[in-house]
Amino acid sequence: MAHTNASKIYNLVGAEAVLTEAEDLRKYLTGFSSSFGYVLSDKNGSCFYTDPRYLEAAENALKGSEIAVKKFDSSIEELLRSYKEVAVPIERIGYVDYKKLQDIGLKIADSSSAFKQAMSVKEDYEIDNIKKACEITDKAFTALLGEIKEGMTENEVAALLEFLMRKGGASGTSFDTIIGFGENSSVPHHETGMRKLHFGDIILIDFGCKVNGYCSDCTRTFLFGDDKKHATFKKAYANVLEAHMLVKEKLKNGMTGSEADAIARNCLKNYGLDKLFTHSLGHGIGINIHEFPRLSPKSDDKLLNGMVFSDEPGVYLSGEYGIRIEDTILLDNNKVISLTDSDKKLIIL
Amino acid sequence: MAHTNASKIYNLVGAEAVLTEAEDLRKYLTGFSSSFGYVLSDKNGSCFYTDPRYLEAAENALKGSEIAVKKFDSSIEELLRSYKEVAVPIERIGYVDYKKLQDIGLKIADSSSAFKQAMSVKEDYEIDNIKKACEITDKAFTALLGEIKEGMTENEVAALLEFLMRKGGASGTSFDTIIGFGENSSVPHHETGMRKLHFGDIILIDFGCKVNGYCSDCTRTFLFGDDKKHATFKKAYANVLEAHMLVKEKLKNGMTGSEADAIARNCLKNYGLDKLFTHSLGHGIGINIHEFPRLSPKSDDKLLNGMVFSDEPGVYLSGEYGIRIEDTILLDNNKVISLTDSDKKLIIL
Repeated sequence: MAHTNASKIYNLVGAEAVLTEAEDLRKYLTGFSSSFGYVLSDKNGSCFYTDPRYLEAAENALKGSEIAVKKFDSSIEELLRSYKEVAVPIERIGYVDYKKLQDIGLKIADSSSAFKQAMSVKEDYEIDNIKKACEITDKAFTALLGEIKEGMTENEVAALLEFLMRKGGASGTSFDTIIGFGENSSVPHHETGMRKLHFGDIILIDFGCKVNGYCSDCTRTFLFGDDKKHATFKKAYANVLEAHMLVKEKLKNGMTGSEADAIARNCLKNYGLDKLFTHSLGHGIGINIHEFPRLSPKSDDKLLNGMVFSDEPGVYLSGEYGIRIEDTILLDNNKVISLTDSDKKLIIL
Repeated sequence: MAHTNASKIYNLVGAEAVLTEAEDLRKYLTGFSSSFGYVLSDKNGSCFYTDPRYLEAAENALKGSEIAVKKFDSSIEELLRSYKEVAVPIERIGYVDYKKLQDIGLKIADSSSAFKQAMSVKEDYEIDNIKKACEITDKAFTALLGEIKEGMTENEVAALLEFLMRKGGASGTSFDTIIGFGENSSVPHHETGMRKLHFGDIILIDFGCKVNGYCSDCTRTFLFGDDKKHATFKKAYANVLEAHMLVKEKLKNGMTGSEADAIARNCLKNYGLDKLFTHSLGHGIGINIHEFPRLSPKSDDKLLNGMVFSDEPGVYLSGEYGIRIEDTILLDNNKVISLTDSDKKLIIL
């Protein structure tokens, strides 16, 4: 049976009708992946409207569930004509769609916070999917280490890593794999390219995969041989790892995103590296690779038991080196559980 | 030097200022891929505002171009305070962002049609990128055919195909690869899974890759051995191929999307298969895998020289078989050029 969340969201929102179009939110409501459709819930139940490309598959997936499936063959106006009020995710809805609802004369409520609240605190089946994605991620990384050879391009390493995740059971990557060799590691979101691997290069790999629509996210930084020119890098690596581990030790249920971020940032400050930590500590992970909560200097988002997010401090010295150490972590019973957990001691291939 | 289109769009729009946030449109304007940023153009020129994750890479990519790069460290309100009018892509902007512009008291113009017009008629560098993506797609498909073996899962075939495209120079897939074995071929947007390949199975493969941010799109349907139970399928295959080829022959500059769609639909009608052709004929292809123009029964979109789109008629008999034959095609000088072009005669492995 499909895992659905339509009545859960309907009850949280408390509006006469709840209409959802955004692809990720629809996937959350129906457990079914599709590029087009609407989910409409009211006191009588929920219905997923989609087009013929998905109709049969959706009917099979949702048979016996709380969600009926119908062909979308009219218009939003038609679907909503019997209501006085509809809730939509205001933070996610396009202006054109919003305007349509306004023009019908509907009272418009906001479902954004209900989705954030429900999607950020994961249920067991969601954690199971993320765990599987993380296991595949770890295994692929370990297998990759044995295959990296001098002269390979960043693209070739990415191709191999993605193949290993796919073969391991992933349905795809959770984002474009980042592989940065040498000086490219200093660009936090480097675009993987044709740079070839040389002895002594730093390798930064930021990667993840999907299982049943749920993401993993992991970054490792290591050396392809030791050319003895990496004293500063090695020192900084130890500092970033300390910051990463300190977050896992000190993070507690009820902290804000800014408090979590400060654990890593203050640790790096002790080593004069906080100015090189140019991004935030982390982000929620689920159906989306970036979702609520944010772990950043200005975030008031509450971190709660059951949430899954990244712990990814990093330092970047332009043109020289970059270091990021990232795990997907689960806050469970006031403790951090590392869902990706391959070796974080500095690897020298 | 980066290929940029900021002044082109600014001139087409004709508003005091043009503000663009959507990721694909920003990529089109700057030639640079990033998950966050704004491009702002006015009579003095254009500026790309982004965050520290992308700042250095953007500066390098846009050095000497028409676009300056700055750190986004204030707010939309701050960026726009000196203007009376701003154009945004109304069809693509979120309600929250639109409301912000409204609240500042700005007159809001629409840049949607300028983007559609400019992005749909491809420039040479764009066609080169799509051609490269299509060549990689074709080569990967041909190489894949020699590797398909009984007992492989849909996921394993997808993994291999994606690996071949990646190794061929693609930066990734242009969408989640669809592999449907046997009865799964009858689901137009089947979710690739663990179904194993048996002798006599139909194989439907819908796949594509990206080069410099530009997509390819291709579908092939073929047989894994001939168990002599496929007489109906083979007849229908010949009919779908006829429809596919007829589009390439008859499609002319200036036709509407509905006229193009009708070429294939009428052809299939002659064989009583039009009711099984449950989706539209095609869609524009570029930075996005689905973009303007639409080739569908209700589309008024004009098909013009320089446009790249898909020609993908298909028929689907629920639970039995599905057939789709798709190429990425370019309308050039009133003739169709097939950019993906691997063999379309029915392959029996």
